[in-house]
Amino acid sequence: MRELLRVNMTDLSARVEPVPEPVGNYGGRAFTDAIVYHEVPADTDPLGPGNKLVFAPGTLGGTTAPNGGRLSVGAKSPLTGGIKESNSGGQAAHALARIGLAGIVVEGVPADSSARYVLVVENDRAASLQRVDDWAGLGNYEVAEKIAAMRPEGDKFASVTLGPAGEALAKAAGIAVTDPKGLPNRFAGRGGLGAVMGSKGLKGIVISYARRFSKALTEHAVSGTGLPMYGTNVLTNILNEAGGLPTRNFSAGTFESADAIGGETQRETILARGGESNHGCQTGCVIKCSRYWMDKDGHYKTKGPEYETAWSFGADCGIGDLDEIAELDRACGDLGLDTIEMGATLAVYMDSGALAFGDAAGALAALNAGIDPNNELRVIWDGAEATGIKYGVTRIPVVKHQALPAYDPRPVQGIGVTYATTPQGADHTAGYTITSNILGVGGTTDPLKPEGQAALSKNLQIATAMLDSLGLCIFVAFPVLDIPDALVAIHDMVEAHTGVKWDVAKLMQLGRETLTMERLYNKRAGFTAADDRLPAFFYEDKLPPHNVVFTVTDEELDAVWDFVDETAAEMGLQ
Amino acid sequence: MRELLRVNMTDLSARVEPVPEPVGNYGGRAFTDAIVYHEVPADTDPLGPGNKLVFAPGTLGGTTAPNGGRLSVGAKSPLTGGIKESNSGGQAAHALARIGLAGIVVEGVPADSSARYVLVVENDRAASLQRVDDWAGLGNYEVAEKIAAMRPEGDKFASVTLGPAGEALAKAAGIAVTDPKGLPNRFAGRGGLGAVMGSKGLKGIVISYARRFSKALTEHAVSGTGLPMYGTNVLTNILNEAGGLPTRNFSAGTFESADAIGGETQRETILARGGESNHGCQTGCVIKCSRYWMDKDGHYKTKGPEYETAWSFGADCGIGDLDEIAELDRACGDLGLDTIEMGATLAVYMDSGALAFGDAAGALAALNAGIDPNNELRVIWDGAEATGIKYGVTRIPVVKHQALPAYDPRPVQGIGVTYATTPQGADHTAGYTITSNILGVGGTTDPLKPEGQAALSKNLQIATAMLDSLGLCIFVAFPVLDIPDALVAIHDMVEAHTGVKWDVAKLMQLGRETLTMERLYNKRAGFTAADDRLPAFFYEDKLPPHNVVFTVTDEELDAVWDFVDETAAEMGLQ
Repeated sequence: MRELLRVNMTDLSARVEPVPEPVGNYGGRAFTDAIVYHEVPADTDPLGPGNKLVFAPGTLGGTTAPNGGRLSVGAKSPLTGGIKESNSGGQAAHALARIGLAGIVVEGVPADSSARYVLVVENDRAASLQRVDDWAGLGNYEVAEKIAAMRPEGDKFASVTLGPAGEALAKAAGIAVTDPKGLPNRFAGRGGLGAVMGSKGLKGIVISYARRFSKALTEHAVSGTGLPMYGTNVLTNILNEAGGLPTRNFSAGTFESADAIGGETQRETILARGGESNHGCQTGCVIKCSRYWMDKDGHYKTKGPEYETAWSFGADCGIGDLDEIAELDRACGDLGLDTIEMGATLAVYMDSGALAFGDAAGALAALNAGIDPNNELRVIWDGAEATGIKYGVTRIPVVKHQALPAYDPRPVQGIGVTYATTPQGADHTAGYTITSNILGVGGTTDPLKPEGQAALSKNLQIATAMLDSLGLCIFVAFPVLDIPDALVAIHDMVEAHTGVKWDVAKLMQLGRETLTMERLYNKRAGFTAADDRLPAFFYEDKLPPHNVVFTVTDEELDAVWDFVDETAAEMGLQ
Repeated sequence: MRELLRVNMTDLSARVEPVPEPVGNYGGRAFTDAIVYHEVPADTDPLGPGNKLVFAPGTLGGTTAPNGGRLSVGAKSPLTGGIKESNSGGQAAHALARIGLAGIVVEGVPADSSARYVLVVENDRAASLQRVDDWAGLGNYEVAEKIAAMRPEGDKFASVTLGPAGEALAKAAGIAVTDPKGLPNRFAGRGGLGAVMGSKGLKGIVISYARRFSKALTEHAVSGTGLPMYGTNVLTNILNEAGGLPTRNFSAGTFESADAIGGETQRETILARGGESNHGCQTGCVIKCSRYWMDKDGHYKTKGPEYETAWSFGADCGIGDLDEIAELDRACGDLGLDTIEMGATLAVYMDSGALAFGDAAGALAALNAGIDPNNELRVIWDGAEATGIKYGVTRIPVVKHQALPAYDPRPVQGIGVTYATTPQGADHTAGYTITSNILGVGGTTDPLKPEGQAALSKNLQIATAMLDSLGLCIFVAFPVLDIPDALVAIHDMVEAHTGVKWDVAKLMQLGRETLTMERLYNKRAGFTAADDRLPAFFYEDKLPPHNVVFTVTDEELDAVWDFVDETAAEMGLQ
């Protein structure tokens, strides 16, 4: 549903309302024309209360369409006496479109013609008129400075301002719009629309289009500092300290060489070798946790390595050297193999005694062996379970045949719930309880105890399925869990893009619907509750240093899915 | 209407089709889940013809939403045996969304399991499978290089590639996605989806998302070279040579100091003073015709000056100095006055004999006089007509009370049709016939003769009303008139943004509807055919150097509006 902001200068009200029917989907000039055509009597005094001043971005405003951000300003013209659309560059059109406004309609005139107002439109579309009588007579450049001084630090905004000529109701008065540097040098110049603005006592409009979402992402300690600085590998030392870094095929929770493979060492080495330590893996990323690993000669070797990779080839295989890990990462990258599965598989293989933990050269040879389809080690490419069975290993860390990632579920019980229950097979990203278990994000839940873990995992699984469906990076979950405005910003972005109403309930329903399809599909494929369990050794073998086993009960695990029947019925699925 | 690309590896077909009903508006993981849920039998062999490999951007893919470009890859997993969504960074999701694809569904398997294919998806969504058997066994980095080598220079594309592990149907095989630098280092790693891709013989996918529209804008001589290099003021010397630069209140068509105020001199001066000669007036601009004028001390004085301003205060007032023009431009910018109207007004005032042509100081004083509401020169702020009447000038260049811009309608007859007929009052931007009259863009029409001018103006007025409604800068008209793909790119962009079908006919209908509202409004406001005429002197006084008068007939002018009754009926307007 498209909406406009209607501002009445007589009663000083400002309200967001649906775009009226005759305006329909028109943008820009068609929008301003339609408002004037349908709402402004043709015999109205252009400077009287019956005229309306309309601002509208075009249909492509706010999009990435090149050169698509022109602003249409419309009214009955005091110069020509006819309908007028005056067209301007500057940032205001993009700003309006980005906050989901199809336009602003300013109507009426104030009782006191000496009154001056500035219309402040916040990025959540809250709008208010503020009286600024002492701005009377100021030039556009000074008004733009006054407006800038009103705004909080870090705000992004566009201004529309009026100079003295408009206040004097001059028929050649135009309306200024700020450019990307905030200078009021773009103009809806023609047809005296500045006089219409002047007749309404409006000295300026400021439209904030600061990305509340970017702000939340860059302000949160994890997404704004930890990840940009050290990449995902910021986690190695954290998990090692928590005793939850699976080491030598999940036989210990700490790794003596953790620091050598962690994000802090990684960053230093990358910078020393002239690598890139902080960029986005795609356009539009504001977290920038990607990095390029360079070899000792300063040539690109591979990305990251990411935390999961540093862990899988590092701690889990007992390899304490980032160059050796990067070599294995590069091989997987080129062969096209999942580094989590491969590290876990090599660790299982090592656990069989066929290869020593820490033997990086042997690991690389084993990894490359599969290039020959007849080599018996080709089984490694089929993963930890197949390899463990072949080599008679009893400790095989898989759920639904997929290897566990870099968090041991014994000292981090919440993630065990996710591993066990997600339809995806053991997968930390499906419901990343490390937030509350380890990082203190979204509250805290004691990682060593079973209490609250199932509910935590369930809620995160629903939220993650929603984020995955919107195309958002999972790392946005950090601010979403801690900064209330971030979730609101998400549904506002979706609403602005889809044109239909979204709220938190609808977001969560999207997550439930996604999981429900997955759950029902797997049931059809033969999965039962028995598949929603961790391997036996997690219930039996105490993991040092905390010497704990996984203690979340089967009933708690099964309760994760208590919403499926209801959601399936709502969706009309079997 | 959302669409997906469905690729069949058995019959090697690829077609764009509507997103099926059960998938609805789902994006990302919900999209891939819904396709797998509804289309892939749960007992299907994951590596057989019944499995489908699905790629989908999330709902926010392709938008400016921060961190909103994750790619979901889905199928029945050969590793877990259940439903799988594996999530990747990289550029592919944004690429798919930008070209208006909600996803790609790859189904079937090729008869020949040794065959290898690359799926090429062009930016217009034309898709084809190309056989690349010699890529068999190549690593991801080399495949990415092979794909890059296939692409035309300047193309923007994302790749999705498969390494040898996927070809070997390894259950730990992942799918690589290129990052912003084209490196295949982002991964849909988990669950063996690379094996599904391998079973389908698909070695790579390339998705071009080169902006056809940006390309057209930057390739066209006017929008890609002339405007970026010299700004709008590129026109001064061109119009002067054409004898169409209105000089000293429209008494001549050439100005002896044209070169001193033209874009070439302007550029040199700006660069010498450390100013900015080439930036966009808003984000998303790829033409970048804006510039900042610096004073002799290197401080920002004003934007541009734009061509219209350099002309109005320059040639039309007989002022041959850019610093003097910039001073007048700055005053208008700060006071909030239309520079076209003000230059034309000062020229009319000079024509009365009250001030000498060329007297810049006198012009500035006259312009500032209006700050005192009781000063008799306050009339200047009300424009050329009011000033001309007050000072008894007979040559007043206005239509519908608004001053003519910087093209004399006698040696440039097409623009005279626009001035006369547009509902906006004399306005070059309403139907910029300079394209075909002077610049040879969109064909050529002899500017000195009446033939074809009315039709030219009419078509451009319709197209311009459309561009103004979409929010596109009028300068996109240059490539639109010369490069067929540019118009197609426009309706594709609108379609991608609005989700409904657009074509050229619908674009032009938008233009007609917009003009129809304007025309009917003005009729209601009392305008008649008599208002659609140029001032008498354009029909009577021959303009040197061509010594021509305006010769388009009244009947031709009136015929510009021949579409209004029909369009009004279609719109249900009176």
